[in-house]
Amino acid sequence: MKGSSHIGVDIGGTHLRAALVDEEGGIDRHPVVKTAEQNDKRPEALLEKLVAACRALIRTAERAGRRVDAVGLSVAGKIDRTAGSVLFSPNIPWLNGYPLAGKLQETLDVSVAMDNDANAFAVGEAWKGAARGIPNWVGVTLGTGVGGALFLGGRLWTGDNLGFEGEIGHMIVDPAGPPCVCGLRGCLEAHASGSALCRGAREAIEAGRLTGGALFDLARSGGLTAEAVFHSAQSGDAAALALFERMGWALGLALASLFTVLGIRHAVIGGGVSAAWDRFIGPLHASLKKHSSMLDPETAEILHAKLGDDAALLGAARLAGLGSGTGERS
Amino acid sequence: MKGSSHIGVDIGGTHLRAALVDEEGGIDRHPVVKTAEQNDKRPEALLEKLVAACRALIRTAERAGRRVDAVGLSVAGKIDRTAGSVLFSPNIPWLNGYPLAGKLQETLDVSVAMDNDANAFAVGEAWKGAARGIPNWVGVTLGTGVGGALFLGGRLWTGDNLGFEGEIGHMIVDPAGPPCVCGLRGCLEAHASGSALCRGAREAIEAGRLTGGALFDLARSGGLTAEAVFHSAQSGDAAALALFERMGWALGLALASLFTVLGIRHAVIGGGVSAAWDRFIGPLHASLKKHSSMLDPETAEILHAKLGDDAALLGAARLAGLGSGTGERS
Repeated sequence: MKGSSHIGVDIGGTHLRAALVDEEGGIDRHPVVKTAEQNDKRPEALLEKLVAACRALIRTAERAGRRVDAVGLSVAGKIDRTAGSVLFSPNIPWLNGYPLAGKLQETLDVSVAMDNDANAFAVGEAWKGAARGIPNWVGVTLGTGVGGALFLGGRLWTGDNLGFEGEIGHMIVDPAGPPCVCGLRGCLEAHASGSALCRGAREAIEAGRLTGGALFDLARSGGLTAEAVFHSAQSGDAAALALFERMGWALGLALASLFTVLGIRHAVIGGGVSAAWDRFIGPLHASLKKHSSMLDPETAEILHAKLGDDAALLGAARLAGLGSGTGERS
Repeated sequence: MKGSSHIGVDIGGTHLRAALVDEEGGIDRHPVVKTAEQNDKRPEALLEKLVAACRALIRTAERAGRRVDAVGLSVAGKIDRTAGSVLFSPNIPWLNGYPLAGKLQETLDVSVAMDNDANAFAVGEAWKGAARGIPNWVGVTLGTGVGGALFLGGRLWTGDNLGFEGEIGHMIVDPAGPPCVCGLRGCLEAHASGSALCRGAREAIEAGRLTGGALFDLARSGGLTAEAVFHSAQSGDAAALALFERMGWALGLALASLFTVLGIRHAVIGGGVSAAWDRFIGPLHASLKKHSSMLDPETAEILHAKLGDDAALLGAARLAGLGSGTGERS
């Protein structure tokens, strides 16, 4: 055997990505598949897809003369690391309570770990991405929702192992702010997620601030997406630009409060919606400056994640490599 | 020699407390003195007072056959631990930039450490108080301002050593909230400190919500204190009760956000204003429940600090004992 590889799997709401990852972070990707077929949303069906992807990657490893020691699963939601099951997933509710990691381990006879997708993102970015060499930082993923993770003292912070940690998306940035899917009001996620962009565009139409153009047409036809809001902002639409300004304002406020409490000054922001970086980073810095009293805001470093979808794959593989659900010193 | 003692000193805005502390946390207190005389607010004068108190405590130790290995200083404000100086103190501005620890060390020929008063409080409560055996928790001190500290993984968290950390008082709980002494708007301190109680009472008078009684008379005569607001609340005054409800609301919101991000569930609240515990703890729990989405709020434990003024003395002595400015595993 030439060495050990791990399998990293990112189980998203719509797609399942899997890859073979070697000790140096080299990646051999399995073709992306759907997380579930339209008429078959069962944990057992997902397990079958996982087994198939892992077996294919194990064969790939064997052909290269390598062995697969462990599999790491990244899933959005509250995770019970010890049981290897999802306590609550907003994207894959039919998976709640199913001991996916244990079942996969039984079938493959290989050690399987499971962690939150934002934690996997952070471990990946710490290993090979934007956070290399930074001991203390806040990780933020901007997607349909807002995920988060903390790296403290060079390690993924896992708190009291309550099934969640780093959930910056559910910090309250404005108690009078808009409702959040979690049931609270004024969470960061309600200001700074893909969902918040879409809801904001619908509200702009209802309030008469958005009365025409591509975004208006999409909203009326039910085809509104975060990407559409982004394209409208790129073409100068004031209502769309205001939504990204609000996103930056909320991110800057949340990070200012966290930097004040943690006594740190680095954040790494990734996720699909972070592609709109140029639209929110200016307002973010302005808000960080406005809301910082202890930290000199000029010393804050807000970094754009480097690895895209590979961060979660690398992170999941890395987390599995350690077998304990905690990240290694970067 | 029967053993080693450390001197802990708490340098407050008005009073200077010093004590001999032994390895078991036994305390031998020096009489409290004023931090400065009315007409002599100079660092050199404070140094003289410190030298006198420490020399007296060293003699006390020697009479008991013990040696003094180190002195720990606790001061409110931004602290440069390495230089042993105060970067910025809201209470003792004339001390800013003076290398107090170095000067004292030179004079006494004993190792001297310096840290923030909220950090000393937390190390004391972790060692002998309400936080014994709790690895991860948020410390809050309610006084004229709101101080804070974090214990993570059984140790005092010192972040990136930027001169501040744990500053929960300057988390923003409501961006539309009242102005804070730090220059920002809506900080926890602007809702939950002794100053906030007094300012709130004055605002209640201006708005016609408080039109008579002891609190009204005190405010008109310029004798308003946090204690007076507390006594009014105790006797059922609605305006005073509302101020403590706002305090609890803001504390609950800030702790909910921090518990969400840190994945933890313990806090210890101390400081002089925490004597009004029964007036704000109910609203605090109600707010924590209202603002928690990830944590089951029934599992949160909000503890009242146990050591009073001794926490900072014990903590300062303990921090000096370690010589590194970080707390020992509890």
